[in-house]
Amino acid sequence: MDARELIEGKRDGLAHTTAQLQFLAEGAARGTIPDYQLSAWLMAAFLRGLNPEETAGLTLAMAASGETLDLAGLPKPWVDKHSTGGVGDKTTIVLLPLLAACGLTMVKMSGRGLGITGGTLDKLESVPGFHTDLDPEAMKDQAKEIGLALTGQTPRLAPADKALYALRDVTGTVASIPLITASILSKKIAGGAETVILDVKCGSGAFMRSLPEARALAQSLEQIGALAGLKVRTAVTDMDQPLGSAVGNALEVKEALSVLRGETGLETTSRFRELCLSLAGIALKTVGLGDESTATRALGSGAALEKAKDWFAAQGADLGVFDSNNWSLAPSRAELVAKRTGYVRRVDARRVGEAALSLGAGRPTKGAAIDPRVGVNSFVCVGDHVQAGGPLFEVHAKDDEDAQRTVAKLSLAVEIVDEPMSARPCLLELETNPGPSTGA
Amino acid sequence: MDARELIEGKRDGLAHTTAQLQFLAEGAARGTIPDYQLSAWLMAAFLRGLNPEETAGLTLAMAASGETLDLAGLPKPWVDKHSTGGVGDKTTIVLLPLLAACGLTMVKMSGRGLGITGGTLDKLESVPGFHTDLDPEAMKDQAKEIGLALTGQTPRLAPADKALYALRDVTGTVASIPLITASILSKKIAGGAETVILDVKCGSGAFMRSLPEARALAQSLEQIGALAGLKVRTAVTDMDQPLGSAVGNALEVKEALSVLRGETGLETTSRFRELCLSLAGIALKTVGLGDESTATRALGSGAALEKAKDWFAAQGADLGVFDSNNWSLAPSRAELVAKRTGYVRRVDARRVGEAALSLGAGRPTKGAAIDPRVGVNSFVCVGDHVQAGGPLFEVHAKDDEDAQRTVAKLSLAVEIVDEPMSARPCLLELETNPGPSTGA
Repeated sequence: MDARELIEGKRDGLAHTTAQLQFLAEGAARGTIPDYQLSAWLMAAFLRGLNPEETAGLTLAMAASGETLDLAGLPKPWVDKHSTGGVGDKTTIVLLPLLAACGLTMVKMSGRGLGITGGTLDKLESVPGFHTDLDPEAMKDQAKEIGLALTGQTPRLAPADKALYALRDVTGTVASIPLITASILSKKIAGGAETVILDVKCGSGAFMRSLPEARALAQSLEQIGALAGLKVRTAVTDMDQPLGSAVGNALEVKEALSVLRGETGLETTSRFRELCLSLAGIALKTVGLGDESTATRALGSGAALEKAKDWFAAQGADLGVFDSNNWSLAPSRAELVAKRTGYVRRVDARRVGEAALSLGAGRPTKGAAIDPRVGVNSFVCVGDHVQAGGPLFEVHAKDDEDAQRTVAKLSLAVEIVDEPMSARPCLLELETNPGPSTGA
Repeated sequence: MDARELIEGKRDGLAHTTAQLQFLAEGAARGTIPDYQLSAWLMAAFLRGLNPEETAGLTLAMAASGETLDLAGLPKPWVDKHSTGGVGDKTTIVLLPLLAACGLTMVKMSGRGLGITGGTLDKLESVPGFHTDLDPEAMKDQAKEIGLALTGQTPRLAPADKALYALRDVTGTVASIPLITASILSKKIAGGAETVILDVKCGSGAFMRSLPEARALAQSLEQIGALAGLKVRTAVTDMDQPLGSAVGNALEVKEALSVLRGETGLETTSRFRELCLSLAGIALKTVGLGDESTATRALGSGAALEKAKDWFAAQGADLGVFDSNNWSLAPSRAELVAKRTGYVRRVDARRVGEAALSLGAGRPTKGAAIDPRVGVNSFVCVGDHVQAGGPLFEVHAKDDEDAQRTVAKLSLAVEIVDEPMSARPCLLELETNPGPSTGA
């Protein structure tokens, strides 16, 4: 087989065979197909598309391109959870212990943040002592014992995806639904998943800005998952405004722990809690172990909090973080207040994400360092009524200059109008096919 | 400016600005845009196309990406000649002295062969002593003195084309009319040309297999030439059967010299001579210095032959090649004869080219060595009546084994049928706009 033949086939709109997709994934993983041929193929695939069978074939070929994880022996059902990325999305930190408390085995590999999109790994590493470098055996042992484990993604898993993603990023071939689908699902399959709950973010702070785009990705993820033997359930959720109040690593962990402790706080935090319960409900229904009310009970009873403590302890964290927020504090704070009385029409997730990024909460480029202490808490969400002089945002910064600069930026992120507004719900759409898994 | 922006624009079908095309050509020439981005752009350009203004902009940007040649001071009119490449195409060796004998200044940079496509440089270097490495000053001095000069292409001319062509070759992006047009014309413009006669080959032995494809390329070359300030005249000519009798380096020079000497030989050679005269007529009409009859007289009078001797002498060749064919002889010969009586329906240029390539007359890959002595003479062309046992091909090989192997291959290149056939003419189509140049 020959890479040029493959490129020419896709250029001419022909469908690839499974063998050709395996050749491609192997070539990408081992570096035997040079980058300039991979990128020509990527552009041809971007413009000509991949049909569902090709996308599933590519997914499986990329999943098989490196090491794979075998979760055999863990108590079933196993569930994995993934989000396409957004601003303030600390869902994993609540969802993992919550679902483990409901009897599911939760095994998750997480990534680091890039740009305005946060990464769960960065967030958890802001907790003193928390380590995220479990090897496969340690991860399985921990999941067997306490029902959940989270570790960083190893580059040895789905290396074809790693190679192709790096090229897509610099060749204008990211925004392809088949390529995004194969990228997400190949890592899940290589990581041993059987059932995945996929949160497809939609809005200004997400990769998919519009509902039709997000819906198309969600449908593709479910369809290709089924073809590739993976049970996928998707939810399309709002990312026009940040998720919850906190944006920034330690700040987000603190907000997640407040939800686990059952504290009733800001309206922003309530929206975040509701999404966690919705997603938990979807997961429970998918595996036939209950529904949203099951999750609500596990949160209310403190079972989820206890599971979170077990988890943090197992991964080395200082459990003091459950009792006090006086850890990982930024030296400087500043507040932005409303200039006028009215209704909040917009809290722009992208702008808030960019403000947090510029404070040092995120990575402008891969491998950059982050400051776990800094970030933004927002006190309002769309539809809230605010008084002139009332608080909108609190900035946590490394110094006063950064804090003031960011307050000025944030004034562009919020819009207050006279007419009452209502926010769109957090959970926008569920894809097809709810109910217990009948096997994929 | 940023390469990814450019790729995304072309991916989305937007037209590039002149500044963007200059950025691209510079980036390709200097290596500041990595290959993987260039090849993604090439695939986007292949699939989305370039409009005429973009193609002209790319042509000029590639022409300006390296050194350029200034032919100022040479007697006008200057004419350059180019063929898109085929099997047995030794036209340049006749056309240059023929047109110089008619009063034109002929300055040409030639390339080497690749695959079944021969290169004039390889052919002339089969002549003992002939050197093809004139520097710009030597080339201009010689053209001023005797009216013609031929040299090898320097990699410093249009280096953007060199970089992009190397990538196109391995990324399935060769067969794009805008990219082919820009590639051909950029080198001509960088080489100082004002008027170019372009022979677009069409048929099994050419890059353009069908007449509509060849016509589209010819039209593009004329249109983009006009936009880029270059006078281009094209002819679409047959490459279903080899051009002339000889395929192979020394063999082709011998055939060209036989035409210059006015020898009447095989029907195959007559077709070649007619094409030379047609193309010469086009050139003369384009610059207003005559027509085909002018060329016919220059050939008949021996003026073209004298000019060829001046040329060969100026570039160091042993002039003995004009008097005898006993030079650069291959050690072994073999003949293929007709198995039946009938009419020749097909002499497949591609198969003859592949036979010559496998003998060592061509390069399977860039930089490979060639054997100047070997090749194939064909004695028949389409429409000829042959007797069973009559000669079809004569193979010149480095040894008997090669000769016999090639004879077997060639039996698949010719087809003899009962019904009389007529060949399509050598000159298939002339593009628009004949007559003297009125300035581009």
